[in-house]
Order: sequence, then structure tokens, then C-alpha cells
Amino acid sequence: MMSAYDELSAVWTRLHRLGHLQSIASWDRAAMMPPKGSEARASAMAEMSALLHRMRTDPRLAELLARAEDEALAPMQRANLVEMRREWRSSNALPEALVEASSLAAARCEHAWRSQRPANDWAGFMPNLREVLRLARETAHRLSDQMGLAPYDALMDQFEPGMTSAEVDRVFGDLQQWLPDLVRRASARQADEAVERPIGPFPKETQRALSLDVMHLLGFDFDAGRLDESAHPFSGGVPEDTRLTTRYRDDDLMQSLMGTIHETGHARYEQNLPREWLGQPVAYARSMGIHESQSLSFEMQLGRSRAFAGLLAPLLRKHFGAQGAFDADNLHRLMTRVRPDFIRVDADELTYPAHVILRYRIERPLIEGAIEADDIPVLWDEGMQSLLGIDTRGNYRDGCMQDVHWAAGAFGYFPCYTLGAMYAAQWFAAIRTRRHDLDARVAQGDLAPVFDWLRENIWTQASRWSSHELATRASGEALNPLHFKRHLEARYLA
Amino acid sequence: MMSAYDELSAVWTRLHRLGHLQSIASWDRAAMMPPKGSEARASAMAEMSALLHRMRTDPRLAELLARAEDEALAPMQRANLVEMRREWRSSNALPEALVEASSLAAARCEHAWRSQRPANDWAGFMPNLREVLRLARETAHRLSDQMGLAPYDALMDQFEPGMTSAEVDRVFGDLQQWLPDLVRRASARQADEAVERPIGPFPKETQRALSLDVMHLLGFDFDAGRLDESAHPFSGGVPEDTRLTTRYRDDDLMQSLMGTIHETGHARYEQNLPREWLGQPVAYARSMGIHESQSLSFEMQLGRSRAFAGLLAPLLRKHFGAQGAFDADNLHRLMTRVRPDFIRVDADELTYPAHVILRYRIERPLIEGAIEADDIPVLWDEGMQSLLGIDTRGNYRDGCMQDVHWAAGAFGYFPCYTLGAMYAAQWFAAIRTRRHDLDARVAQGDLAPVFDWLRENIWTQASRWSSHELATRASGEALNPLHFKRHLEARYLA
Repeated sequence: MMSAYDELSAVWTRLHRLGHLQSIASWDRAAMMPPKGSEARASAMAEMSALLHRMRTDPRLAELLARAEDEALAPMQRANLVEMRREWRSSNALPEALVEASSLAAARCEHAWRSQRPANDWAGFMPNLREVLRLARETAHRLSDQMGLAPYDALMDQFEPGMTSAEVDRVFGDLQQWLPDLVRRASARQADEAVERPIGPFPKETQRALSLDVMHLLGFDFDAGRLDESAHPFSGGVPEDTRLTTRYRDDDLMQSLMGTIHETGHARYEQNLPREWLGQPVAYARSMGIHESQSLSFEMQLGRSRAFAGLLAPLLRKHFGAQGAFDADNLHRLMTRVRPDFIRVDADELTYPAHVILRYRIERPLIEGAIEADDIPVLWDEGMQSLLGIDTRGNYRDGCMQDVHWAAGAFGYFPCYTLGAMYAAQWFAAIRTRRHDLDARVAQGDLAPVFDWLRENIWTQASRWSSHELATRASGEALNPLHFKRHLEARYLA
Repeated sequence: MMSAYDELSAVWTRLHRLGHLQSIASWDRAAMMPPKGSEARASAMAEMSALLHRMRTDPRLAELLARAEDEALAPMQRANLVEMRREWRSSNALPEALVEASSLAAARCEHAWRSQRPANDWAGFMPNLREVLRLARETAHRLSDQMGLAPYDALMDQFEPGMTSAEVDRVFGDLQQWLPDLVRRASARQADEAVERPIGPFPKETQRALSLDVMHLLGFDFDAGRLDESAHPFSGGVPEDTRLTTRYRDDDLMQSLMGTIHETGHARYEQNLPREWLGQPVAYARSMGIHESQSLSFEMQLGRSRAFAGLLAPLLRKHFGAQGAFDADNLHRLMTRVRPDFIRVDADELTYPAHVILRYRIERPLIEGAIEADDIPVLWDEGMQSLLGIDTRGNYRDGCMQDVHWAAGAFGYFPCYTLGAMYAAQWFAAIRTRRHDLDARVAQGDLAPVFDWLRENIWTQASRWSSHELATRASGEALNPLHFKRHLEARYLA
């Protein structure tokens, strides 16, 4: 007879296989699909969401999970069972109709947003967003009842299991103690620093060729993934076939370059998850906070370092010819330039957290019902003014409509970016403890010390441990914002 | 209470939605997927095949189908019910394990074929092909038992419902009476005809731009579809989002050009299926023979006509500059040049049927068990020698390994190409009866007479009628090879 654990394992293998089709369809929707395909795609993906949900809420699972607890399991199987149960609990909190309605509403809202955002059409966006929010609140409350967490925490738990708003308040509170002063001091230091900007235009095909070279340098496996374009860059697909996207502006090559480096960090995590366990929950990436710690290890820790600028410089000259801007020191100044601006994804390392804090301050009361979708613009304008001194009044496009997350119903995700930045700083502190010559090695083009450490401590560990345990095993301590502070001081004030 | 018909209709809507994901994944596999994604994709698609099969064989359907027969239904609903029953009957002939195994074996064989074909590796191909054949035979025998058809006919019925090998023998027999002589006479006429070939190289991007222009000319809706590249050109995706592929050779622009015209014919059929019925079986394309009649209406009837050559000429000059080859008369000679050659998809209109007859002569006894996969090369070499006077010995790559069909388990498909060519000739005879000035209109760039007739008589009729009835309603008679003969005589001997 098959053990209960083996039966569960077979169910999750099926979920993985059907989820594969959903992931590829989702990538396709953002990177390939023509506009008239939208409605049929939304229906197809909502149907699949409902089906996957039905499989996760099959009444048989309750008994199998209970029986499996008493079976003799290896440690990795035990960890897998924990993850199965976690997924099962949250799925059972949600009725199928809610899952299907959420999928449809998000697809509709996101699709309309693609044209409403460039048109600065907040009024047109509102009805769709209100519906997405209504469903997200219902989801939050049902998850909250099931898991005994506050509603917003219950949503955040889907992206970063174990994280609470109390903990976010603590680390963001810490950050706000020292970051504004650090931004001021860094800006003052940079005030009379000369920085040359690359001179365009930069043809898309050349930018793409540069991106491919940089991905090669960063160890991306092109036999198991692709680089394409989308309105909003992301890393998608499946671990066996990772699909990255970037976007190209012909007047700014740094945007696609840094975007590609960021997404390649996500991709290498996916490409190095433990192959022998793929298909089981324990083999998925730990959390979105840990995921962002990989993209930001690549983009911020490694990508914007002086040593890495020395590797980028010859690649830039190869593709775009010699320019003063491509001097390695200048490139490094360019990539570490601090300047409060409108757009989160293009923000520098120092002002980025302010973008996240603003969103967190808005989405938490939104989910709690303390404010409504219609209140967003006023709160946004006030927050951007007080946090970054930027006037966004009437500018929805570059203000509260800039991100896809709320349109897609992903409330509770934003904190992951800054948690990821902190984790990334913590990982690099740990790497430097082991490899005092890290920068010299990177400068010589040897990135193995970084990749080896991440592979051993993060990538291959997948979901075997909680984020807390993972961080402790990898770096000797749980999340500690002090490493982020030290990193920023070293980079911007030293 | 929901009527039985409405319940059935809801089941097929779900099948359509989940099938959407399968179709997009299938397109992606051929056009986008990197090699290491292959195994996971095969598992995912086999899982979905099994799931769709399970839905089609749900025991509840038998009773619903029986009850629906007695309900008051509109004619279109009645036709829909016929199609549901047809799908249900053939699905119920096949056990789920066979469906899943076939999907996996085909994926594995096709994936390996992609590298074995260029390597001319027949020995490597054999074990995979034997397994695909074994499963196809089992499928044929089970369908045969269920439907009371001969095994090969039962497979062909999946692609061209109602077609039998007796009928194929009749029309192919007719063809063989007059075609060889027609080939000889046409070749003799062309013997001292001067034809200039376009001078390359032809950059891929420029060929692509030309393809897009030609697709615009042919009325393709780019908001509901795309053009990409694959090793074997095809038309895939879903009616709401049609995905075409072509392939580019830098020494031969005609291959991608004619391939694109061909696939655009398929695509316009899909894009013009009745939108209000999409999701129901009655709204799918009638059959693969009728489908090929659309691609060949575009490629052969329209595309290789003298009038259309006059429309292509300025587009070729626009993209590749002035060349003697781009003179409209020369282009027409080039596109109607008769020359026995190795590759089916690149064959001229007159020798193409020989390629199909050869494959039909081999695949039918293969399925019947009269010959084995290992016998293919000898039969292929003999057939190519006797039908076209071509020596293929040892040349598997350009011989019996050239097509994806057998690797993919699609036995019984090949006759559809020549049936399609005959239907296409029959459609154009009907159009000319109504529009005596057709060529003059086409020469002026007015393709509406063709599109209007096809839309009214074929595209919007979808699966409402059997092929036989569809042909009779559209053209006044069932499939009649005489129209094909007259067309070829008019084009090649007049």
C-alpha cells in the first residue's frame, strides 16, 4: 500500500505539473499575448485557478495529512509535509468562487491598467481596483480567521511566511531612524560630484545583446530559460524553464541593464532549486522576501559595487563604443547616484525603501478597511511629499498607478522588497566574513565566491527551513537590519 | 433546473478553457521553450491530456447526452450536440493511461527528433518511433472497435471526420491517372523557360518585415495573433489568439514567404470562427482537410496566381530593393516552377501530392501492422524513386525523417493536405462562378471577393455541417477532384 505521505506527494506532483501550464500562460500573457487574447486567457487562467484550488481542498487531504504525521519520514520529507500543510490550510480558508472571482477581477484590472496607466486614467481604473480590493479584503479576512493572524498579516504570510506587521513595523521603524539622515549626507557628498550620463539613443537590439552578455556573466543557464520584454519586468516561468523579462528605453540603457541584473538574481535562485525535489512544496523558493534578497544580491550588493562596475565597463564599450560615461569609476558613481524620484523600480538603493514604506502605509489600512481605494491619491501625494519631497498631485501615471501589484491583487507583497534588501546585505556580510578578498575577486571577474555561497546557503535550501531558520543557518542570526545600515554607510559615506 | 444540454455546454466551456492553456503551452514548446524545459513540459502536458480525457469520459456525460437528445434544441445546438457526442465517443474508446502514455511518448520522440533529424540519426530515432507507433496502433484499434471503422480510418477520422481510406483510394487513384502526365507536360513546357532566382543573402529581420506586410495584405488580425519562428512552421494557439510560425533561410526568401502565406490561411479560418459560439465543439474548425483547404486557398490558389504575384512584387522590392527576380511575371514563374525535390513542405503544387501519396502508402500498413517502423526507409527510398525519381538512400534527414507528424504520433493526417488542395480548387471554382472578374480584382489589390466567400461559406460555418454537407452547401457538390485537375491544367498547361 502507498503511504499517506506518498499519496500526498503524488497530489503535489500533479499540482506542480498543472501549475507549470498556468505559469507559462501567465508569462505569455505579460510577454507575448496580443490584446484580443486577454478575455479568453483570463477565463482559462481563472478556470485553472479554480481547478488547482479544488485539488488543494480535496477533503481526502485532511486525513492523508493527519496520517502522514505519524509515518516515519526523513527530515526533508518532514519539511515537505510542513509546507503541504501550510498550503492546504490557506487554500481551505478560501471558497472556490472567491479564488475564481479574484483571478478574473485581477486579470481584468491588470489588463485595463496597461492602457489606463499611460493615459493617467485614475477614474477609469477605480471601479476595477475597488472590486479587486473588495475580493482581497474578503480573502484577507478568511485567511485571518483560519490562521489566527491579523488580516493584512494573513496576506503578507502568503508571500513571506512567518512575517508579521509587528515585525515589519520594527524593522521599518529602525530604518526610519537612520535612513533619512543617511540620504541627506550621501546627497550632500554627491552634490558636487561629476557624473557623466551615457549618450543615446541606445537601439533596443544592442541593449538586448548587452543584457544577454551580462546574464552570461552572471551564470544564467540559457538552456533553461529566456529573456524577453514586458511592460513590467519580472521573473516567471517554472524552475525548469525560467522566463525573465526586461524593458528597453532608447534614451536610458541603465534601466534595462539594472533590471536584467535584478531579474537574473531571481532566475538563478529558481534555476538552482534542488532538482531531485522539484514538484514538491519543499523545493520551491522559500519566500518572496528571500527571493528579493537574491535579485537584490545581484542588483544592489554585487551589481552596483565598484568591482562589478569594472566588469560592466568593457561590456558597455563593446556594445555602444567608447564613451566617457563607461569609465568604471563613473559607472559606479552613476549606479550609486542618490536622487529622490517618482518611480520605485528605477529608484536608487537609498531612496528605494521610502517607496516601499509609502506603499506599506497605504495598503495595510486599505486591507484593514480603515481607508478606501478612493483615498489612495491623497495619501500617496502626502507620503511622497513627506518621504521624498516629490509632488505627485494629478500625476497618477508616475504616482499611485505606477505598479502592477494592487491591480493584480497582490496586497502584502511590497514589504518583501525591503526585507529582501536587508537580507541581501546580511548575506554579503556573511560572504565577506568568509572571503575577505571578495571585492578583489569580483574585480578579477571571479564571481564564484558569491554564487557558491548563495547556492549552498540559499538556492539549494529551497523551503527546507523557515526564513528565520534559513537566515540563522546561513548567516548566524535572524534578520538584522544593522547589516543593511553598515552596507549603505560603507558604500555611500566611506 | 439546468437542461442537460446546458450542463453539457458548461462542461465543454471548461474543456475549451483548459485546452487553451494546453494550446499555448504547445505553441510555446515549439516556438519559445529552451531545451532543458522539455521534460517538465512533457509531464505537464501529459497531465493535462489525462485531465481533459477524464473530463470527456466522466460517466455523467452518457446520461446527459442521452437526455439532451430529447430536449428542444435550436439547429445550431443540435449540431453542437452531434459534435459533443462524436468527441465523447472517441474519448471513451481510450483509457486514460493510453492517452497519457501517448502524450509523453510523442513529446519525447518529437523532442529527440529535433536534434536527430539534423544529425541524420535514424538509428537513434528508431526506439522512440517504435514506441510512438506501438501506442498509435493501440489507439487505432481501440477507436476502431468503438466506431466500427478500420484502424487506419479510425485515426484519419480524428482529423477528417467521415473520411475513409476507400474514399482516399478513390480520389488519390483518380489523381494518379492524370497527374504524372500533367507533371511531365508542365515540366516540358517549363524546360526552356527563363526563371531568375532572387539573389541573397536575405537577412532574417527583413524577411520577417516582409512576412508581416504580406500578413497585413491577407487580412490577419495582429491584435488577435502573432508571427514567430519554429523549426517546423505551423498555426497554433487558440481562435482568440492565433499563433503562426515560419522559418527563415538566409539563402531563400521564398520558403518563409510561401510558408507565411500558407499559415495565414489557417489563421484567418481560426480568427473568423463564430465568436458567439466559441468554446463549444460546433465552433471549432470543421476538420484538418478543410483547414488545409484554407491554407492552400491562400498559398496555392491565391498566392501563386499571376494576379497575386503582381501584389507581391512591390513588397519584395520595398524590402530587398530592385532585382530582376522581383518582376511579377518572373515571380509567377518562380512560384509555379515544377521540380521534383526532397522536401514536402517546399514542394511545388504539382509534385506535392506525390509526397502525400508516399506517406499514405507507408503509414496505412504501418498502422495495420503489415509493416514495421524499421521498414520505412526502404519503402521511402523506393517510393521517392518511383513517384519522383529521387534518390533518398541513406539521406534520412531529407527523407523519411523530414516531417514531425510520425514523431508526434499524428498518423492519418497526411491525406488532409491533398484533400485540402482539392477542396481549395473547388472553392476557387465556386468563387469564379460568382465573380468572373476575380483575377482582375485580385490584380487591383482587392482580395475581398476571396475573403468574403470564405468567411460566408467556410469560416463562420465552423463545424455546423459535415465536410460533405459543408462542401455541398458551399460549392454545390461534394469533394470533386476534377476541380483540382482543371485548376492545374489552367495554371500549368494553358
